[in-house]
Amino acid sequence: MLEELKKRVFLCNQMLSSRGLVVLTWGNASAFDPISGLLVIKPSGVSYDTMSADDMVVVDLEGKVVEGRYRPSSDTPTHIVLYKEWGDKVQGVVHTHSVHATSWAQSGKDLPIQGTTHADYFYGDVPCLGVLTPQEVEEGYEHFTGVKIVHDFNERQIDPISLGACLLTGHGPFTWGASVEKAVENSIVLETIAQMGIYTRTINPDMRLPGYILDKHYLRKHGKNAYYGQK
Amino acid sequence: MLEELKKRVFLCNQMLSSRGLVVLTWGNASAFDPISGLLVIKPSGVSYDTMSADDMVVVDLEGKVVEGRYRPSSDTPTHIVLYKEWGDKVQGVVHTHSVHATSWAQSGKDLPIQGTTHADYFYGDVPCLGVLTPQEVEEGYEHFTGVKIVHDFNERQIDPISLGACLLTGHGPFTWGASVEKAVENSIVLETIAQMGIYTRTINPDMRLPGYILDKHYLRKHGKNAYYGQK
Amino acid sequence: MLEELKKRVFLCNQMLSSRGLVVLTWGNASAFDPISGLLVIKPSGVSYDTMSADDMVVVDLEGKVVEGRYRPSSDTPTHIVLYKEWGDKVQGVVHTHSVHATSWAQSGKDLPIQGTTHADYFYGDVPCLGVLTPQEVEEGYEHFTGVKIVHDFNERQIDPISLGACLLTGHGPFTWGASVEKAVENSIVLETIAQMGIYTRTINPDMRLPGYILDKHYLRKHGKNAYYGQK
Amino acid sequence: MLEELKKRVFLCNQMLSSRGLVVLTWGNASAFDPISGLLVIKPSGVSYDTMSADDMVVVDLEGKVVEGRYRPSSDTPTHIVLYKEWGDKVQGVVHTHSVHATSWAQSGKDLPIQGTTHADYFYGDVPCLGVLTPQEVEEGYEHFTGVKIVHDFNERQIDPISLGACLLTGHGPFTWGASVEKAVENSIVLETIAQMGIYTRTINPDMRLPGYILDKHYLRKHGKNAYYGQK
Repeated sequence: MLEELKKRVFLCNQMLSSRGLVVLTWGNASAFDPISGLLVIKPSGVSYDTMSADDMVVVDLEGKVVEGRYRPSSDTPTHIVLYKEWGDKVQGVVHTHSVHATSWAQSGKDLPIQGTTHADYFYGDVPCLGVLTPQEVEEGYEHFTGVKIVHDFNERQIDPISLGACLLTGHGPFTWGASVEKAVENSIVLETIAQMGIYTRTINPDMRLPGYILDKHYLRKHGKNAYYGQK
Repeated sequence: MLEELKKRVFLCNQMLSSRGLVVLTWGNASAFDPISGLLVIKPSGVSYDTMSADDMVVVDLEGKVVEGRYRPSSDTPTHIVLYKEWGDKVQGVVHTHSVHATSWAQSGKDLPIQGTTHADYFYGDVPCLGVLTPQEVEEGYEHFTGVKIVHDFNERQIDPISLGACLLTGHGPFTWGASVEKAVENSIVLETIAQMGIYTRTINPDMRLPGYILDKHYLRKHGKNAYYGQK
Repeated sequence: MLEELKKRVFLCNQMLSSRGLVVLTWGNASAFDPISGLLVIKPSGVSYDTMSADDMVVVDLEGKVVEGRYRPSSDTPTHIVLYKEWGDKVQGVVHTHSVHATSWAQSGKDLPIQGTTHADYFYGDVPCLGVLTPQEVEEGYEHFTGVKIVHDFNERQIDPISLGACLLTGHGPFTWGASVEKAVENSIVLETIAQMGIYTRTINPDMRLPGYILDKHYLRKHGKNAYYGQK
Repeated sequence: MLEELKKRVFLCNQMLSSRGLVVLTWGNASAFDPISGLLVIKPSGVSYDTMSADDMVVVDLEGKVVEGRYRPSSDTPTHIVLYKEWGDKVQGVVHTHSVHATSWAQSGKDLPIQGTTHADYFYGDVPCLGVLTPQEVEEGYEHFTGVKIVHDFNERQIDPISLGACLLTGHGPFTWGASVEKAVENSIVLETIAQMGIYTRTINPDMRLPGYILDKHYLRKHGKNAYYGQK
C-alpha cells in the first residue's frame, strides 16, 4: 500500500538524520494521503541506520495500524490531529529535537522575526505554545499536543500554510506543509533561524524586522506575485 | 578472555570518538562482567586511530590487570568503585571530556531539567558533584571520585539507573547504565542536553520543565507502562 | 558565451555550499565581464546538488537575460548596480545567508574590527547598512539594495576594494572583489570574523584593535609594500 | 636537507587544516633542528590543498632561506626568536587563527584554568599578552612578537615547557613544545579549552579550578611520578 509515499517518507526521515536535525531516534516525519485517508509514518524508536522504506507504518485517522510490522512513532496521535483538522492543505508533518529550535522551545518564548531568512518562509513570529495541563497529559499527551497546536493557531488567527511551524514549551519543534518534503524544508529553516536568533540576541536582543520587509520577502516567494525561483 | 565483551568495549570507545565526544584520547568506556567479576576497559592514553579490540585491558575489582599488554585507563579506580557498589545493575561506565557537558561541569552547577529531551532519559536534574578534598586527592584521586559519586547519589537518594549521569565540578561527565552501550547512549544524550542547556540559559535562564511532564516523558520510555519504541 | 566564466561562477557557487555558507538555495555568486559588459549569475532557487555550469545565466546590465534556460537569481538587480558603479574594479559579487554574518546583520550593528584576522582582509569595521524605506521596497527592493550599498560606501568614503563586504540590517551579508573567487574568499573571511566577533563580545564587549595594528596587518597583505604570500 | 623533518612539518601543517584549526591559509607550523641550527617552516600563503612536503622552506636563525623555492611564512621571525631563546627544549612552534582561541585573544583576557582538561596540559592560566607598541610594530612586527612572548614568560616566571601556549591580544594563539607534533597537540588542546571557557563563562563566570587539583592533574601526566598513558 502507498509504496511511493512510504519511499518519500523514508527518504524524508533519512534527510532529518543526515542534515543533523535528529540525534539518536529523536524525530519523525509523516505524510498524509487524502484519497485513502491514511498516513505513513516512521516506526517508533527504530534506528535511522538500519531502517528501510518497508519499515514505514501505515495508520488510519483513528490511529489503527493498517500495514507495517512495527509500532508507529509514539507521536502519531499528534500527527493525526493535524491531518484531521488541516488535511485538505497540510499533507506532511515533522517533529524533531533539533538543538537550536529545541533550545528556543525550552525557553518558552516565541522565535521573533529578526530577518529575511525567516520572512522568506514563515509569515510572522514562530509561536511557542504553552504546556499542557496535568489533565491533558494524563488523558492523552500526544493527542492533546495536536489539539493545542490547532486551537492556538485558530485563536491567534494564524494560517498553518503561511506559518508551518511551532515550538512547544519544554519540548521542541513541530513543522508541517503541503507535502512531507515541504515539512522537512520547514524544519531545516526553523533550525537555522533558531540558531541565528540565539546569536542575534547576544548582540542586540530587541531587533525585529519591519513589517513591510516581512511582507516583501514573504510575498517574493509566495502567492500570485511571487518571482523567486523557476516558475 | 571475555573476547565478546572486549569487542563491545572497543566499539563503544570508537563510537565516543566518531560521535565527537572525545578529543585526542580524553575518554574511556568500560564494561563489567558480573559472572567473572572482571571489567574490560580502554588502555590509557592510546590513540583511537590505531587501537584494536585486542588492546582492551581486563582488570579485576582490586585493580589488578588480569589480561592485556597495556596499562588500563588511569580512571580505572573510579570505574571499579561504581561496579563494586552498583554492579548488580550498572554494567557499563563512560567518562569523556565532551565540550558542552564539561563546560557545565566547569561551572559547578547541576544541569537543570529544561525539556523532554532530558526527561526522556534522566529522571531529574543531572547533579554536579563538588570537588574532592586535598586529602582525598592525595590519597587516591580516582578512587575517591568513585566514592564521591556513590556517596552523593545515596545522600540525594537518586537511583543510578533512572539517572545514569553526573558532572564532576572542574572536571567533566561520567555516565553509566545497564550495559556499556547504554552508558555511551547516556553520554550522547548528556552532551546534547548540555548544549541545549547553554543556549536555553541565554534566552531564558529560569525555565524548568513541570514535574508532571517529566513524569510523563520518563515513564513513556521506562517501566511497565512504557510505550515508546518496539516492545 | 563566456563558457570559461560560467565554469568559474558555477565552481564558486558550489564552494559557497561546500564551505557551509549556504543552506538550501540561499546564496548566489556572480562575475562581471567588463569587455562584453555582461554578467554571469546563478539561476534562482535551483538546488546546488543538481546544478551544472550550463545552468548559469548570462545577463546584461539592463537585467535582460542574454543566454540561459533559467531565470537569474532574484538578487540580480543588486549585483547589476554594483557592477554598473564599480565594474572597473569589482568583477565578482556574492550574497549568502551564512549563519554568523546574518546574525550580525540581524542585530543592525557594524562588525567592529577586533583582531588581525579581520585586519588582514578588511580595512575597517564592516558596515551594517540600514533598512530601505517602504517606498524603495515597493519600487524596486533588489535594485535599491544595490543603490544603498554604493551610496553608503560613498557617503562613508569607504573604498570598495579595501573593504569588500557589508551587512544589510535584517537581511544578511554581501561581499565583492576584483574576481568572483575573491568575493567568495571575502564571504569565508566575513563568516569567520562574524563568528569570532560573537564570542569575543561574550568575553569582553568593548575590545577594538588599535589603528596602527590594523594598518600593519592590512598593508602586510595589500599594496606595494606587501610581503605576505608568494609574489 | 632535513627531508624527514620536512615531512613531519608538512604533516603537522596538514593536521592543523584537517582538525579545523586553520581557515584558508591562516596558520603555520615549524620544527627546529638543534644540530644544524636550522628550522623548517610552511611557505607563506600557499594553499593547504596543493602543498607538498617539498614545499617546506628551510631557514637559518638569521632568517635566511637555506633551501626551498617559496618564501617562508611571514611569521617566521616570531618562530626564530622562540628557537633562539628556548631552542634547547622548544623544537616545535605553531600559530593559528583557530576560532575560539582567537576570540579569547581578541578579548585581551587570560584564559583562566577552569578544569582538568586544561590542567592536564597547561600548568596555569594561558596568558594573553598585550599589544606591541607602535615603534615595535614599525621596526619589526613579527620579530618583536617573539621578543614579547619570551620577555613576558620570563617576567611572569612561566616555564615554556609546562605552559606551551599564549594568546596575543587582538591577534591569536601561539603554541610550542618539545616537538612540532607536541606544538600541534597544544594547539588542539588550547582551541578546545578556549571553547569550553566561553561556554563556562556564560553559565558561571567566576569558576576556577582549585590549585591542588591543578597540581594533581598536571603531575598525573608530567614529571617523574606521572602515571597517565603507556610508559
